Amino acid sequence: MFLHDKHLQFEAKPVKPDPLMAKKVQELIGGQFGEMSVAMQYLFQGWGVRKGNEKYKDLLLDIGTEELGHIEMLATMVGRLLEGTDIKHQEAAAKDPVVGSILAGMNPQHAIVSGLNARPADSVGNPWMGSYIISSGNLLADFRANLNAESQGRIQAVRIYEMADDPGLKDMLAVLIARDSFHQNLWMQAIAELEAAEGKIVPSTFDRSQERTDIAFSLFNHSASSEESSLGSWAEGTTPAGDGEFKYVEKIPFEGEIPKLENPPKSLHNTLPEKDLKK
Amino acid sequence: MFLHDKHLQFEAKPVKPDPLMAKKVQELIGGQFGEMSVAMQYLFQGWGVRKGNEKYKDLLLDIGTEELGHIEMLATMVGRLLEGTDIKHQEAAAKDPVVGSILAGMNPQHAIVSGLNARPADSVGNPWMGSYIISSGNLLADFRANLNAESQGRIQAVRIYEMADDPGLKDMLAVLIARDSFHQNLWMQAIAELEAAEGKIVPSTFDRSQERTDIAFSLFNHSASSEESSLGSWAEGTTPAGDGEFKYVEKIPFEGEIPKLENPPKSLHNTLPEKDLKK
Amino acid sequence: MFLHDKHLQFEAKPVKPDPLMAKKVQELIGGQFGEMSVAMQYLFQGWGVRKGNEKYKDLLLDIGTEELGHIEMLATMVGRLLEGTDIKHQEAAAKDPVVGSILAGMNPQHAIVSGLNARPADSVGNPWMGSYIISSGNLLADFRANLNAESQGRIQAVRIYEMADDPGLKDMLAVLIARDSFHQNLWMQAIAELEAAEGKIVPSTFDRSQERTDIAFSLFNHSASSEESSLGSWAEGTTPAGDGEFKYVEKIPFEGEIPKLENPPKSLHNTLPEKDLKK
Amino acid sequence: MFLHDKHLQFEAKPVKPDPLMAKKVQELIGGQFGEMSVAMQYLFQGWGVRKGNEKYKDLLLDIGTEELGHIEMLATMVGRLLEGTDIKHQEAAAKDPVVGSILAGMNPQHAIVSGLNARPADSVGNPWMGSYIISSGNLLADFRANLNAESQGRIQAVRIYEMADDPGLKDMLAVLIARDSFHQNLWMQAIAELEAAEGKIVPSTFDRSQERTDIAFSLFNHSASSEESSLGSWAEGTTPAGDGEFKYVEKIPFEGEIPKLENPPKSLHNTLPEKDLKK
Amino acid sequence: MFLHDKHLQFEAKPVKPDPLMAKKVQELIGGQFGEMSVAMQYLFQGWGVRKGNEKYKDLLLDIGTEELGHIEMLATMVGRLLEGTDIKHQEAAAKDPVVGSILAGMNPQHAIVSGLNARPADSVGNPWMGSYIISSGNLLADFRANLNAESQGRIQAVRIYEMADDPGLKDMLAVLIARDSFHQNLWMQAIAELEAAEGKIVPSTFDRSQERTDIAFSLFNHSASSEESSLGSWAEGTTPAGDGEFKYVEKIPFEGEIPKLENPPKSLHNTLPEKDLKK
Amino acid sequence: MFLHDKHLQFEAKPVKPDPLMAKKVQELIGGQFGEMSVAMQYLFQGWGVRKGNEKYKDLLLDIGTEELGHIEMLATMVGRLLEGTDIKHQEAAAKDPVVGSILAGMNPQHAIVSGLNARPADSVGNPWMGSYIISSGNLLADFRANLNAESQGRIQAVRIYEMADDPGLKDMLAVLIARDSFHQNLWMQAIAELEAAEGKIVPSTFDRSQERTDIAFSLFNHSASSEESSLGSWAEGTTPAGDGEFKYVEKIPFEGEIPKLENPPKSLHNTLPEKDLKK
Repeated sequence: MFLHDKHLQFEAKPVKPDPLMAKKVQELIGGQFGEMSVAMQYLFQGWGVRKGNEKYKDLLLDIGTEELGHIEMLATMVGRLLEGTDIKHQEAAAKDPVVGSILAGMNPQHAIVSGLNARPADSVGNPWMGSYIISSGNLLADFRANLNAESQGRIQAVRIYEMADDPGLKDMLAVLIARDSFHQNLWMQAIAELEAAEGKIVPSTFDRSQERTDIAFSLFNHSASSEESSLGSWAEGTTPAGDGEFKYVEKIPFEGEIPKLENPPKSLHNTLPEKDLKK
Repeated sequence: MFLHDKHLQFEAKPVKPDPLMAKKVQELIGGQFGEMSVAMQYLFQGWGVRKGNEKYKDLLLDIGTEELGHIEMLATMVGRLLEGTDIKHQEAAAKDPVVGSILAGMNPQHAIVSGLNARPADSVGNPWMGSYIISSGNLLADFRANLNAESQGRIQAVRIYEMADDPGLKDMLAVLIARDSFHQNLWMQAIAELEAAEGKIVPSTFDRSQERTDIAFSLFNHSASSEESSLGSWAEGTTPAGDGEFKYVEKIPFEGEIPKLENPPKSLHNTLPEKDLKK
Repeated sequence: MFLHDKHLQFEAKPVKPDPLMAKKVQELIGGQFGEMSVAMQYLFQGWGVRKGNEKYKDLLLDIGTEELGHIEMLATMVGRLLEGTDIKHQEAAAKDPVVGSILAGMNPQHAIVSGLNARPADSVGNPWMGSYIISSGNLLADFRANLNAESQGRIQAVRIYEMADDPGLKDMLAVLIARDSFHQNLWMQAIAELEAAEGKIVPSTFDRSQERTDIAFSLFNHSASSEESSLGSWAEGTTPAGDGEFKYVEKIPFEGEIPKLENPPKSLHNTLPEKDLKK
Repeated sequence: MFLHDKHLQFEAKPVKPDPLMAKKVQELIGGQFGEMSVAMQYLFQGWGVRKGNEKYKDLLLDIGTEELGHIEMLATMVGRLLEGTDIKHQEAAAKDPVVGSILAGMNPQHAIVSGLNARPADSVGNPWMGSYIISSGNLLADFRANLNAESQGRIQAVRIYEMADDPGLKDMLAVLIARDSFHQNLWMQAIAELEAAEGKIVPSTFDRSQERTDIAFSLFNHSASSEESSLGSWAEGTTPAGDGEFKYVEKIPFEGEIPKLENPPKSLHNTLPEKDLKK
Repeated sequence: MFLHDKHLQFEAKPVKPDPLMAKKVQELIGGQFGEMSVAMQYLFQGWGVRKGNEKYKDLLLDIGTEELGHIEMLATMVGRLLEGTDIKHQEAAAKDPVVGSILAGMNPQHAIVSGLNARPADSVGNPWMGSYIISSGNLLADFRANLNAESQGRIQAVRIYEMADDPGLKDMLAVLIARDSFHQNLWMQAIAELEAAEGKIVPSTFDRSQERTDIAFSLFNHSASSEESSLGSWAEGTTPAGDGEFKYVEKIPFEGEIPKLENPPKSLHNTLPEKDLKK
Repeated sequence: MFLHDKHLQFEAKPVKPDPLMAKKVQELIGGQFGEMSVAMQYLFQGWGVRKGNEKYKDLLLDIGTEELGHIEMLATMVGRLLEGTDIKHQEAAAKDPVVGSILAGMNPQHAIVSGLNARPADSVGNPWMGSYIISSGNLLADFRANLNAESQGRIQAVRIYEMADDPGLKDMLAVLIARDSFHQNLWMQAIAELEAAEGKIVPSTFDRSQERTDIAFSLFNHSASSEESSLGSWAEGTTPAGDGEFKYVEKIPFEGEIPKLENPPKSLHNTLPEKDLKK
């Protein structure tokens, strides 16, 4: 069960409105790595944690609940960045080039649809989708997803920080960036715990003898004109998981034949073999 | 530029058709972590690598090109799992319970739309989307996305392996699972290289003094009835990035006020303040 | 800011697992009128409420926060309905017709993707989308959206209640259905308050003389072969808003001409007028 | 069966072109509450009306058919707002700030994809989706959806009216706004008819004793720092449906336990309980 | 403007209900090539036809209007195929294998969401999307899209015809299949008219000397292990457009260099060149 | 299996950056008819070709593989058009009207999400979707889809060519436009081959006597106010397929009744017939 406190955890007040920045900030709300994604991702992961892993469950629900508050801070920020945007007589106003480029560039749905409020969408207006979130029931896999989400999210917050001049907006972004730093450390730590306990190749519970281990350490060279990939530390030496030695394969052997698929039943009305085609 | 060789890199021949398994295998083609996702993700990342990072570029293009061949193997497998599926007189056939449950359970688009061939879609029929792929221009962030993708992908391949009895299908999955193992090792190695070179918090080029470092190490307890999250190794001690000490904050202080947003211009026809509401 | 309490507000325990029912219950989580929709809808509406309407803001945040807990109850229920589902050797198991129809009919992503946990998706597997939610900044409009959402949601919960035999599932649905009853009453009451204060035609702040009031009360008969629509109470008498008299127009007059659009610039390479077409 | 008359029902002629306004007007065509939504919503609802409710069926088909003509008027308007837009040499033209902001702000697909014609999409370019429409088979529920759609739709038309200066565009919007007024009155009237006949809680045919009536009248306070929601008319007194008395619950009791989910079968390769995790 | 006649143009009465067939028939309503697609495609194309091409405009609006009636026939058919489907006690009913496979295989949204009526979605439940339709303003291009749509649509109708036993369903499909035959002939005829008038390469109004005509007739061999493509009539001889001679290029020359992209500004926090990476 | 060569097949170098053009060029990458669509469409079609049609399979894989290289050229072009775009201090920079309109008009995800690289999306930011591609197993149908795709694609490339001034961009577009010319010729040739072999109505293997041939040649006039469609060559004379004579039907007869659907079981809680509605 959830409770809400009307205080914002951190302040969300720009010094002055800026509808173009409001459009960009939407990426942090409803983008692939916005706060809707991490909030829902951590909550769904947490709800799926099973008996015996209570500390991971509590952690996921703590952070997921924190992220709900971040959506709130960002939605408040967007509402304020849009404050006072005058939608009247846009045709006339657009004659002033600066005003014109603001009116041309702002997200029209901020005016037409949401009444100068935040939208559950990204910076180009794509609605947030449930398919952004990742929750597999395997915590090591999912913590890697979380580390990625916090890394991508921090890059995006930092890029918007660089775009911004408004001290109030920058202050709030400085908070979000710091939390993204913390969350990167957090998931790295949780990953290290799980890797130490169960090994590094996800899922660790699959019997490795069932996979084709003879090809599990080979970097196949699919390039016709360059082999720079052979220069990395992944081309020879022991793997990070410690389960074998990297190998570089310059020329890839074939195991498979050229596939010839049987023709489907006539009831499908696919194309017949060329020799049977006749009017 | 790309070249194609009609040989499959590895064989893709089930012992016998199974339209229900064909539906499940679609997850590995067009699901969020299917081969369309990793192929396109690595290629877009590779095309975006800039001067001076040629070895990463070559690596991404090598693996992305390999994954194109995996889509091909899986599409061939799906075509063969659907071989001979008779779509005629389904109403009559459905009287036999086993046949009935196969006809009821198979993906109807495999018959109606693609003529017993693979679809660019997942196991419930959602079309593959460009929003699945991740490419930020920051390689450490993106390699974390790749490690996650290979982790999620291997879990899914392993689960389908467990569902399967067909030796031919299992042989092909054993190949894909091995390659997912390799790719996990590969991205872990590349991540380790980059973390050693630039540090662990992504992006590493942002001046940390601009973020709110006072809150960059705090685990906020958002739980009213439990504190199991304080038991993890993330609640105290040095962070993995070595940039500070973890701290557990049992009771979260507020910095923000209760937000009061200004009313928007009348031209938006939002609800007026309660005191001004009158017919 | 949000807080979480690990207790479920109400119990979510089926007597026994049922993967087909788990698939259906997903509609109440991630469907167009599932709990993800109402939670996010009420929160976004609440965050957008402006100065002077604090009681509506508090109400929206109360109910939105309650609905977050409903997602949690449903996700827990789905996890338990999927408990023990054995995915091993589905090809062999499918020979038993009852087991076969369960395996054929369950959502394959419950096994392959989420590891027997809930998904942020509906009963056919479509991911939840931000475009489901409605938040316009006009509270009377939005409360009508909310009344609709609770009406549609209660119908869906009731239909699943009728499908179910499991007493534990029925108990939880009895809770959700009761809350949907309450929420219908709630939004009806709030709508009545606002309609009394500002009038019934949304938005009420638009100067009616600017609209074409001469056609604002006419039911146009667009039917060639029937006029049953003239029999309703909407065909004559005073309107609910009290702003005029309903009127039935059997034969619709034209005001517009047949449109003839100018040809676009040649640089667009649209089709030329027929007389100018030549190779 | 449908018939078409090439006359527009009402005129759709702007005084002069305006590609930025064309982009905004798209919201009224292919937005969540655009004319594609209401046309398809009313037609699908109408096609689903069963025996004995012919007057509702005729009404839905009348209005749905009318809305098809509104798409036509809007598509014609967009075509004319785009008339003469010169796409040649945009790089050069963009040096003029006013022209530049028009070229920067217009929907690029209006030029590249549709050849200066309307698109089945909203004002930011999202394609219209079948998931926007609502049709449940329960007319009271669906008429509430319709009242909401006409309320949201009128708000959006009004906002665009405020943005516009062009008298021809305003004339057409004045028509649409008037029809939205009428349709709000219409659905309110139809709702009143059905509520009088069957009661106000949807669906009315469900045996209320099966729901948890003890919690069907309680407003739960999910707020930690404010109780303004207790000030509304929904916190005490008889409900609008007349089925009970509202009640305000300041401190919410728990009925549910902290959920502990059983671990899934090993074949899923979820994370094991912490005590069993070992390499 | 549109008018509706409540008569169906053709009958839509199955002999008996069949919820599994109802699910499949959805492909013809809301699939990529269902009737929603062709109706909207022809109407949007028609509304965009400009002065001087009235006969094409009238044709598009005639056929688009006809297709609206096909959605109606199919929606009626789906409603009847779902008639009497008893959703009560599905858990108990599923014990009967035949009933069980029907309940497992039917579209759950037909019961839960639409109350046994058609949905604006395809046979796996994906909602119809505006991005399915094609309308470019160039009639020759668009008539090719139309010919494709009628070809794909007829294949799908034929495949469902083969699946069906119900004489009433087959009668209605025989109508749709005949109309798809007609529409293929129709668009072929219109294409022939336009190709005769303006030439075959779309768009015909582009000055061919601006394209790289030296590579406009070459079939590049991108295959490493086979050259069967050289055996087709497209490898030598005059082209269908009569604008040149086909040419087969066994080994593709490169014109481009290996791309080296400049590093972006630091403010983006992309990965630095390897030599500059340091903690 | 695929191989990659790091050389671009053709050069992709603009003379100078232009972030607005970068946004437009995205249509050619991830739009409905962008290179992602044709690449994936031809590959999926090719993988589905069955025994006996090797020359069509090789052709599809040749062209699909070529198109992969076109995505690469366009992604490289977009990366270069975005080179040097300075995202710093956008609020300040926007004061300069020309810079302001560039910053307002560029795709914000090019800066925030992809770090000045291409996105798998179209010119308004919609992600590419698997539902764009067409692959039915019937080659004549699919080659018509391909001819359409190349026609639409060439129109779009030509329109962007007209918008561009940059000689480097125009050079690359001249290549793509030439290839689209070739591919139109190619698919026309392959279509002619197949039509000669099997006939023109797709699918040709369906027994025509099962369709309603009496209505397979009739153009129904669905227009109330005009009959221009009767003036085309499709209104009389022999059809292109040579299977009958076109016929114009001015007044459409009805075969169907007004549909009256049975009421569904009570368990669905649809609206009851009007006479049974009571509280």
